[in-house]
Amino acid sequence: GSEAPSSDSTQSSGSQKYETLLTSINDGVYSITLNRPNKKNAITLQMYEELMSALKEAAEDKSVVIATMTGSGDYYCSGNDLSNFMNIDPNNIEKMAIDAGKLLERFVSSFIDFPKPLIGLVNGPAVGVSVTVLGLFDAVYASDRATFNTPFSNLGQSPEGCSSYVFPKLMGAAKANELLLFNKKISAAEAFHRNLITQVIPDDVFVKETSARVAYMAKLPPQSMSYSKVLIRDAERQTLHNVNKEECRVLVGRWQSQECMNAIMNFFQQKTSKL
Amino acid sequence: GSEAPSSDSTQSSGSQKYETLLTSINDGVYSITLNRPNKKNAITLQMYEELMSALKEAAEDKSVVIATMTGSGDYYCSGNDLSNFMNIDPNNIEKMAIDAGKLLERFVSSFIDFPKPLIGLVNGPAVGVSVTVLGLFDAVYASDRATFNTPFSNLGQSPEGCSSYVFPKLMGAAKANELLLFNKKISAAEAFHRNLITQVIPDDVFVKETSARVAYMAKLPPQSMSYSKVLIRDAERQTLHNVNKEECRVLVGRWQSQECMNAIMNFFQQKTSKL
Amino acid sequence: GSEAPSSDSTQSSGSQKYETLLTSINDGVYSITLNRPNKKNAITLQMYEELMSALKEAAEDKSVVIATMTGSGDYYCSGNDLSNFMNIDPNNIEKMAIDAGKLLERFVSSFIDFPKPLIGLVNGPAVGVSVTVLGLFDAVYASDRATFNTPFSNLGQSPEGCSSYVFPKLMGAAKANELLLFNKKISAAEAFHRNLITQVIPDDVFVKETSARVAYMAKLPPQSMSYSKVLIRDAERQTLHNVNKEECRVLVGRWQSQECMNAIMNFFQQKTSKL
Repeated sequence: GSEAPSSDSTQSSGSQKYETLLTSINDGVYSITLNRPNKKNAITLQMYEELMSALKEAAEDKSVVIATMTGSGDYYCSGNDLSNFMNIDPNNIEKMAIDAGKLLERFVSSFIDFPKPLIGLVNGPAVGVSVTVLGLFDAVYASDRATFNTPFSNLGQSPEGCSSYVFPKLMGAAKANELLLFNKKISAAEAFHRNLITQVIPDDVFVKETSARVAYMAKLPPQSMSYSKVLIRDAERQTLHNVNKEECRVLVGRWQSQECMNAIMNFFQQKTSKL
Repeated sequence: GSEAPSSDSTQSSGSQKYETLLTSINDGVYSITLNRPNKKNAITLQMYEELMSALKEAAEDKSVVIATMTGSGDYYCSGNDLSNFMNIDPNNIEKMAIDAGKLLERFVSSFIDFPKPLIGLVNGPAVGVSVTVLGLFDAVYASDRATFNTPFSNLGQSPEGCSSYVFPKLMGAAKANELLLFNKKISAAEAFHRNLITQVIPDDVFVKETSARVAYMAKLPPQSMSYSKVLIRDAERQTLHNVNKEECRVLVGRWQSQECMNAIMNFFQQKTSKL
Repeated sequence: GSEAPSSDSTQSSGSQKYETLLTSINDGVYSITLNRPNKKNAITLQMYEELMSALKEAAEDKSVVIATMTGSGDYYCSGNDLSNFMNIDPNNIEKMAIDAGKLLERFVSSFIDFPKPLIGLVNGPAVGVSVTVLGLFDAVYASDRATFNTPFSNLGQSPEGCSSYVFPKLMGAAKANELLLFNKKISAAEAFHRNLITQVIPDDVFVKETSARVAYMAKLPPQSMSYSKVLIRDAERQTLHNVNKEECRVLVGRWQSQECMNAIMNFFQQKTSKL
């Protein structure tokens, strides 16, 4: 990313830079679009790395005031691509689990430490880690088509993205555990009442309405917003990093457990049996 | 409790083990029913001890996946049995207050540290400590007949069950203090909006609906749920223990105050005058 | 303030003591009315000092059980009087910013440490610091005419009154940032759903309804309420003081920034151009 201030930031750039993302910079807005629509924007190992690069670029480019994230096609994001669990060498499973844990910890950290306002534009269903990290965004607008689902226990896993700490803060344990422990899928309206999102917007005006809001935000005094965001985050930053580390440590254990392997195998069999 | 894994856990056990509780183990569910219906399930010193024993048994029995708590008869629980305050030797009041504080701290700790999902099934009105510890449960379903009331200041007392910390987190200080300071009784619907409970269920289908949910939960991968619960709790565990200790310290002082004695005496006089 | 217990506390006192406030003590209630109705009760440097004095008096007077704060005229409070930013000697701006930061930190601390129930009676629109410190009150009743607005970034500034920490706790980051970063003005109903206030009351019965509630509260056992309030606050007290200090440090920097000066100059020009 360019570190020089730019008075002319209207040109689009970088859309060819990534294979799994579309990105652009326009009028102070760094837009990220998850771009694997045929796979419901499931996050591959490559997409984790590209998202971290894009966030780094948005943080460092002085022409960027705010960043947005949305999905291409009908889905926002179907979460971790479970094919990441395929082709696992049984002799090497511990190393693969540890490496995956390190990747996830770096990924979530890049959201914890993003220094400018980060706006989620949830255009459709959201699953897993794409839901949990929303708790680290500064505003989230969701289409009324959006749903939110974190099926950790169905897959023999455990919460990530700081959701084990942030979700109970947002909605209380009694409601957070429906998501974190008991696999409940909630609507956009429920996500609003549970303080996960800022507002529900009818799908037919979603792009138009959110574009207007984002344009308004990008014209506010940028230093004031950035200092304010850092101030708000600083009160929680160390706690969030500790939670992230602990969540990844538990997940690395889960991924090596028989219970988790059975649950994921079961998932693939159900998928196949639908064909 | 048996520590051996049991593949056949459908037999019921222990219902004769306690005088103030009914307990059973079926299909991975440890069910606790407060069983003093003629006294609105008020908690005597014996019931405090028996509840701790039952929670310990549920934690240690490897056939148990989740635990539930409900009340026998019309009430869920009318709170601390105020007859616990009767027959107090005026020369011995300090020791009795200290002992009661130690009992309460142990009792609340047994909820903080319970390692498996704990589900509240609030079948009717709930009062005092039976309300405050709900903030330490993992899910709470309430009949639309349920009400929630913590009349601390009416009785010259102060918050317990970690409610001084948990209730403001759930609903903000402006609403929590209606309960903690100003004796407001809230409906099940209000308890839902204030994030104290997971869902309100019509009374005529309460047992049927909650049984189905509990059965679903008990079939989820048990290690995944248990690891997830411990992860969620660990982020707050030490804070909760500190809050519990401090709440009990303040209460021990309150119990020895003239203000509290007058309030409780007043309570018994009102009760008597109704006869 | 008198430190002696008073059995006859019905006399009114102190209404002549302050130039910017009306105060009175009646039946255990210390009432504070912001009294610059022609200036929408904007807070001058003198009013900051007088509010701290009044809170100190209410804390120390043993006849006082609870304190209330409301506004005179149509507004509750329009926030910091921006004329506090006028007549700034350009050679002396750093010292003036540092002094203003110290004043603000003392002011917010007096709310953090107020030892008795403090009730906000928001009779009309509330802006800026008068909104943020509401998060430190114990109950807040608002007229349905009230609105809540903290235009920090519009004025090139950053959050104060512990709102950078308290508002995300009350309503989650996704909704808090609408206020803290993006200048959204919310209605009383929205403030209720976001847990900032206890209840919305129709304007035509606001004084009558809130007087009855306050009178009820003031008759509850005072030590029980005071011990309970201190217990609730102690769990957060040190965190709140740290947040207050950090917020003021950031604001002192903001006040010396070109971005903030431009934003405030712009505000005065818009005001003038409306004449």
